[in-house]
Amino acid sequence: MAERTKYILDEADMPARWYNVVPDLPEPPPPPLHPGTREPIGPDDLAPLFPQALIAQEVTTERYVDIPEEVLDVYRLWRPSPLFRARRLEKALGTPARIYYKYEGVSPVGSHKPNTAVPQAFYNAAEGVTRLTTETGAGQWGSALAFACATFGLECEVWQVRASYDQKPYRKLMMETFGATVHPSPSELTASGRVILAADPASTGSLGIAISEAVEQAAQAENTRYALGSVLNHVLLHQTIIGEEALKQFELAGDTPDVLVGCTGGGSNFGGLAFPFLREKLAGRMDPVIRAVEPAACPTLTRGKYAYDFGDTAGLTPLLKMHTLGHDFIPDPIHAGGLRYHGMSPLISHIYELGLIEALAIGQEDCFAAGVQFARTEGIIPAPEPTHALAACIQEALRCKETGEDKVILTALCGHAHLDLPAYGAYLAGNISDHELPEEALAQSLAGLP
Amino acid sequence: MAERTKYILDEADMPARWYNVVPDLPEPPPPPLHPGTREPIGPDDLAPLFPQALIAQEVTTERYVDIPEEVLDVYRLWRPSPLFRARRLEKALGTPARIYYKYEGVSPVGSHKPNTAVPQAFYNAAEGVTRLTTETGAGQWGSALAFACATFGLECEVWQVRASYDQKPYRKLMMETFGATVHPSPSELTASGRVILAADPASTGSLGIAISEAVEQAAQAENTRYALGSVLNHVLLHQTIIGEEALKQFELAGDTPDVLVGCTGGGSNFGGLAFPFLREKLAGRMDPVIRAVEPAACPTLTRGKYAYDFGDTAGLTPLLKMHTLGHDFIPDPIHAGGLRYHGMSPLISHIYELGLIEALAIGQEDCFAAGVQFARTEGIIPAPEPTHALAACIQEALRCKETGEDKVILTALCGHAHLDLPAYGAYLAGNISDHELPEEALAQSLAGLP
Repeated sequence: MAERTKYILDEADMPARWYNVVPDLPEPPPPPLHPGTREPIGPDDLAPLFPQALIAQEVTTERYVDIPEEVLDVYRLWRPSPLFRARRLEKALGTPARIYYKYEGVSPVGSHKPNTAVPQAFYNAAEGVTRLTTETGAGQWGSALAFACATFGLECEVWQVRASYDQKPYRKLMMETFGATVHPSPSELTASGRVILAADPASTGSLGIAISEAVEQAAQAENTRYALGSVLNHVLLHQTIIGEEALKQFELAGDTPDVLVGCTGGGSNFGGLAFPFLREKLAGRMDPVIRAVEPAACPTLTRGKYAYDFGDTAGLTPLLKMHTLGHDFIPDPIHAGGLRYHGMSPLISHIYELGLIEALAIGQEDCFAAGVQFARTEGIIPAPEPTHALAACIQEALRCKETGEDKVILTALCGHAHLDLPAYGAYLAGNISDHELPEEALAQSLAGLP
Repeated sequence: MAERTKYILDEADMPARWYNVVPDLPEPPPPPLHPGTREPIGPDDLAPLFPQALIAQEVTTERYVDIPEEVLDVYRLWRPSPLFRARRLEKALGTPARIYYKYEGVSPVGSHKPNTAVPQAFYNAAEGVTRLTTETGAGQWGSALAFACATFGLECEVWQVRASYDQKPYRKLMMETFGATVHPSPSELTASGRVILAADPASTGSLGIAISEAVEQAAQAENTRYALGSVLNHVLLHQTIIGEEALKQFELAGDTPDVLVGCTGGGSNFGGLAFPFLREKLAGRMDPVIRAVEPAACPTLTRGKYAYDFGDTAGLTPLLKMHTLGHDFIPDPIHAGGLRYHGMSPLISHIYELGLIEALAIGQEDCFAAGVQFARTEGIIPAPEPTHALAACIQEALRCKETGEDKVILTALCGHAHLDLPAYGAYLAGNISDHELPEEALAQSLAGLP
């Protein structure tokens, strides 16, 4: 009998509820504040941006939230996603470690993002919204929302960070194939964009700027709301289906992870995989080390300040208590556009402060080396974002080779690189280097935080 | 209980042998001929190009061929592939038909091509070959062979049709990420390429020319063999795992197809799905209509001549009895590069002549319209090639809507369009038209055939 390569759940075994980690934490996360009053915001403050159902999920203290049947029905187009045992990578590394990866690249757009795009589109459509605006970096999130909007008959308007819009034209074409409209950000279409362009007509943009543009548009237009692809509690909630499935798949495998690694930009992929395992850890049923990996060029957890800051550049959002490099810090245009955000999910920031997870930063050269090794052994070319998790996974597996430990490592492989191949082309041509952090600009940005 | 969206087989239920349709046919297909003697060729004639194991499979009269464990082990990286019920498309069409699609886009390179690339690389490596050459059109086959060569430690050198090399740069990057070397074809590297370039320095190439270059190189270089991605018997044999899986999945679904549609370029995807169903039909266990769909710009079955012709442009291959437009006919550069081949698999040509399958040709505008409708309902953006099958599938489903018949339609969705998005961009911008057949050139080419 051959050794198993992957663990697949039947549709009937797909989890039917999302997990909310908040009630299981030793203390609740600090609330978002109104930037004027510095008082905790209420549902009314968020109503111009989000439908009531999502506002309720953002602050819920319930441990589980049922997934609507209409959402499950769309999830079934690609879920449950597979859990793979990376036997070929293990062999190439010569490690006694057992490496597993939970692969979200099977979704219609090739990443984990539809897990939240679909419920967000569903809840908006159910409350009569007809149009969603959003930002996107590499384009994974914009593609996901474009797909979800096509599914529920909503219009979709996307501001894409100019650096990625230029670097990754295929993502724009994918969004348009699903019926969305795409603008490069900063754009002349919004006051927030015009301010940036006036100061720097050649601005390559940032997620913070693109968020300002999409939020501004949603607040002004009729029947229009805004959708965010990461950072917020309800987004991480929707992503927990990843970890819930992985737990069931580890049962099938008869194994238990000792180390869990995921990449962090806004935190949704990492939180989605990690939170259900954190529940098990807090309940004493397993004891994995949980490790967040961020790019050295945008090290929010390892170099940022834990402070109240805006989620966007123009200061249109509530203040969020999070690890941040400062809302006007613009990270270098690394290829992992999805990790290029000045802040970190408040929930993950809080959990990091509680000492429940670890963090480390890795430069992009090591990450692409890991990505190529993975592609040539496992056959999947990983998106630039999860190469960060893979680089950390390989580090751990090589430590196991030295010590002889047969640790079980679980990695979040949140997407493939079909639309990021020019980044691999640049790496293979020797045209990729680790961006140095602009220390002076960073110090200045951090000094501006409360 | 929710209605099922997809049917997944467990790894343990993956078929462990390929199916050879030849012994089940009422008469055997005509043999390939030596172009000099016009006598049937023997194994020695093929030895400079292929390893012994594949030559044996090319002419085997056994009904089944065991899949080596090393090949099964690689297949498990993505196989068994899912069979989907296209409920959302059915609803959008308002048809009583039940539409199923067998999806091969889950493979490492996003198409069905690794099903044969992997065994071809395996058998070559097992016989001491260290380097494979090949041609590729859109790049699906080249990517597949690059992946397979990485898996078995072989060098891989690819001649890519110039039109696709320029139109689809991401495919080249994917091949290079897997470690392959890629040349545009025609190239100055071979005598075959130099002849073409001398006559037309701006030649956009064709599969026929690229095959000449790869074959020439393999015949000359040491420890080097050639790999073909379609047309030949052993290639179609390897692809039958698609149909064998689909048969098992229809058992799970408790359904039986009335109509089976697949797109045909060289014929490997179509044959792979159709042959196991043809076995069932010939045995009287089911009676599906089996329909091949080809591009109107390259209509080998519907407009070609059934004659002995070369597989390549320079005339380096044996003569194959097949439906052909003539080996020097260069089809217009339609976006479905994988269907842009002057000939058709001899086995499928023979089966067509026996009246066991139907064929029709569709223009690319209708195909892209079908692709966009499919993307916006089912979430998968189909590669330009299978949009031909989808267009025919939608035609059939709409006929069912008129007649009220609840036919069961099975479509081969052989790949996704992540690396073909510029074609969708051109369609959405209104820049795609049906290419008219160059009737005069075609008549001249057909007149040159025996």
